[in-house]
Amino acid sequence: MTDRDDDPVAPEDMKPAEAPSDIYAEDGSVRSDFLTMVGAAIADRDLLFLRKNVARLHESELGDLLESILPEQRHALVRLLGSDFDMTALTEVDEGIRLDIVDQMSNEQIAAGIGELDSDDAVYILEDLDDEDREDILSQLPFTERVRLMRALDYPESSAGRRMQTEFVAVPPFWTVGQTIDYLREEEELPDSFTQIFVIDPTFKLVGALDLDKVLRAKRQVKIETIMHETNHSIPAEMDQEEAAQLFEQYDLLSAAVVDDNGRLVGVLTIDDVVDVIQEEAEEDLLRLGGVGDEELSDSIASTSRSRVPWLAVNLITAFLSASVISLFDATIQQIVALAILMPAVAGMGGNAGSQTMTVSVRALATKSLDIHNAARIIRREAGVGILNGMLFGCAIGVVAGIWFQDIHIGGIIATAMCLNMLAAALAGILIPLVLDKFGADPAVSSAVFVTAVTDIVGFFAFLGIATWWYGISG
Amino acid sequence: MTDRDDDPVAPEDMKPAEAPSDIYAEDGSVRSDFLTMVGAAIADRDLLFLRKNVARLHESELGDLLESILPEQRHALVRLLGSDFDMTALTEVDEGIRLDIVDQMSNEQIAAGIGELDSDDAVYILEDLDDEDREDILSQLPFTERVRLMRALDYPESSAGRRMQTEFVAVPPFWTVGQTIDYLREEEELPDSFTQIFVIDPTFKLVGALDLDKVLRAKRQVKIETIMHETNHSIPAEMDQEEAAQLFEQYDLLSAAVVDDNGRLVGVLTIDDVVDVIQEEAEEDLLRLGGVGDEELSDSIASTSRSRVPWLAVNLITAFLSASVISLFDATIQQIVALAILMPAVAGMGGNAGSQTMTVSVRALATKSLDIHNAARIIRREAGVGILNGMLFGCAIGVVAGIWFQDIHIGGIIATAMCLNMLAAALAGILIPLVLDKFGADPAVSSAVFVTAVTDIVGFFAFLGIATWWYGISG
Repeated sequence: MTDRDDDPVAPEDMKPAEAPSDIYAEDGSVRSDFLTMVGAAIADRDLLFLRKNVARLHESELGDLLESILPEQRHALVRLLGSDFDMTALTEVDEGIRLDIVDQMSNEQIAAGIGELDSDDAVYILEDLDDEDREDILSQLPFTERVRLMRALDYPESSAGRRMQTEFVAVPPFWTVGQTIDYLREEEELPDSFTQIFVIDPTFKLVGALDLDKVLRAKRQVKIETIMHETNHSIPAEMDQEEAAQLFEQYDLLSAAVVDDNGRLVGVLTIDDVVDVIQEEAEEDLLRLGGVGDEELSDSIASTSRSRVPWLAVNLITAFLSASVISLFDATIQQIVALAILMPAVAGMGGNAGSQTMTVSVRALATKSLDIHNAARIIRREAGVGILNGMLFGCAIGVVAGIWFQDIHIGGIIATAMCLNMLAAALAGILIPLVLDKFGADPAVSSAVFVTAVTDIVGFFAFLGIATWWYGISG
Repeated sequence: MTDRDDDPVAPEDMKPAEAPSDIYAEDGSVRSDFLTMVGAAIADRDLLFLRKNVARLHESELGDLLESILPEQRHALVRLLGSDFDMTALTEVDEGIRLDIVDQMSNEQIAAGIGELDSDDAVYILEDLDDEDREDILSQLPFTERVRLMRALDYPESSAGRRMQTEFVAVPPFWTVGQTIDYLREEEELPDSFTQIFVIDPTFKLVGALDLDKVLRAKRQVKIETIMHETNHSIPAEMDQEEAAQLFEQYDLLSAAVVDDNGRLVGVLTIDDVVDVIQEEAEEDLLRLGGVGDEELSDSIASTSRSRVPWLAVNLITAFLSASVISLFDATIQQIVALAILMPAVAGMGGNAGSQTMTVSVRALATKSLDIHNAARIIRREAGVGILNGMLFGCAIGVVAGIWFQDIHIGGIIATAMCLNMLAAALAGILIPLVLDKFGADPAVSSAVFVTAVTDIVGFFAFLGIATWWYGISG
């Protein structure tokens, strides 16, 4: 950042354009007129406009704005805003954009910005930087803050310790409500906002927690230990964030104490961070089912292409497996071309029925609603659905195929093959995810390939095999 | 419920079995030994055990238990627990199980149980009942509670008004912090717990909101209006719950005021309900992408089968479309059977590449990260990825096919067709969801059918068409 950029002549004689109070259009995207104004203000270095209309945005709005403008505009905007730039917005943008912006900032500027943030947001930004930059930035922070951030960064990636906030309010159990309220009124070094007060012993061991409404409703002379509740749901700092999120969901928690190996309070995990985790996990499952890894919209062509190659490669192998099944029956196809015309329909319908069952199974496994107590019932149900829909669509495709090729035999053959394949699809759709899960593999990642392989192979083999046997053709 | 069930002889001389303190096994399912104990206690009508170990469970644990036992056991358990049965647990189970349990209860029993619940949980249970039972149950509730529930039930399904809690704490702006704390200490008719205090004028119009930590940290003589914040994010009762959830997520809200058409405060929406909405919506998107509607694990074979028919039916039509494309080239297939063997590979690889792009697009549209500002860039990126991966896998499949059939021509033909189909897949994967979204259709529901149809048709047409032209075969 150069001095010249920092202090342009503010165009005070110009009346600034009136920015809209809601920056979003109907469809949820950032309004085009607002983008135009911001673009013009960046080009004109109109600090007055930017401070008034951009710096005052909520962090998530600023994040959406950063995602909607060009990279050069982003860099210029961050430069122009200087210390008015709220770095919390960086936690709201794609990883690619975050790294791009941070790369353009000096370590001094980042350190100054990070100092203003809550520790969980600071860790979120710091954890993606390379070791050298991170060390440099940390060394520029005040001692207590540096120690706090380093402690959080020491916990494994995606652990509760990484997502926790290290600022919290804690009081001893023998205090009264009056003492606690006086402490809160007088103490200056408290977090900006908090929703729970923790109760600890002299060694920082967690004893309980207090909801603020209980404090407000109790008389001044009441002892804290009589209105606190035991925290059954304190979270070990090493716990995976997904597991922590499930605890929040199950017990409707708003915030939870994070404790170290010795049961000492080290931080607090809040529901807003957990909501992000829930979203991320749901997104991951969906993307994995679609055969896509951890990619972001801001990724380049090369990296996107690379991340999608593995699944396509596995698919190429299973495609050749299916092709070799078909090649077993080349003599049959040569004599009855109708089989070649119809066979993709048998395989395709099976594939779809299989992916329906698989989607339900994978989701049920992810939410832990499918387990040993109901697996047998669900398998029976899916088999039933497979047979029922198999007969229904088998008959439908049989009638149409029979009329199309004026051949009742081909109608009967395709109907039978379809029935068999729909049953195979149903069983594959439930059993494959169950088995993968049993052996510790993520069913969302790998089920689809196996299910399609089964439905393709069974579909081609059943249809062409039955036809070969029925017409008495030998290869 | 008969009297006999209500008051069996408690087996006081028997030492009750020690139930485990954590009812969950490693894999997240309910522990089998606990299920066995509960089953035995139900069979023995061991009220002591059930009251001690089942009635004290958290609502979500009780819900998981209900989902893990047999229907007869469920009915008996609810009967045995009587008024000790926490009806909140019904909000934690599958719709099918909820209706089954409620069906077995008398309206008097339901009314008594509902009276104990927060209004949002009560509405959640009441909204699924048929009109007659609902009227009957409501008529047995005290007047104020009946009016509250009826007001919430009047709002449309899946609206914020349905999900809100009608109990809240509100004070006038001219009160001091001292007056507010005294009111909270003395007033008995307050909700069990709350995280915000709302500020209203004499006509109940919402003026602002107060976080509890701010109240605790202010001196007694401070006026409420000086520490309250304006609620920019109050939620109209008619707003769809999904939209409300997005506001919570974007602005990290813990609770938000719900207001009627005149800006009057009618309730409060809390983050724990919103977390459920977020989960449901993510689940819906995933199930729809997999071609499955709103089904539950407890659904019967018949209803599951029925709910999956529509998508399979559409798929049958597109399968015949693809088949008729193949039939255009029957003369070619008859001469070169290798084409029939390889053509599913071309279509299948295209289908997978298309579903990768589609998954990313549908997810990005759902989270509003794909909009007009970046659509052009994403389309270009996906086209680039399609061409890149098309060339890569085109070459791979070309080499293998060429070697397999000892025919360099067939290798070249399949490589070219694969390239074209991967590009078509990429474009279909992004453009189809975008167009569906533009016209107000849910891209998650319908994209998959269209994308597969495109990749099948382009795959077969390109491969067989190029082969027909290259070998100079006429139909």
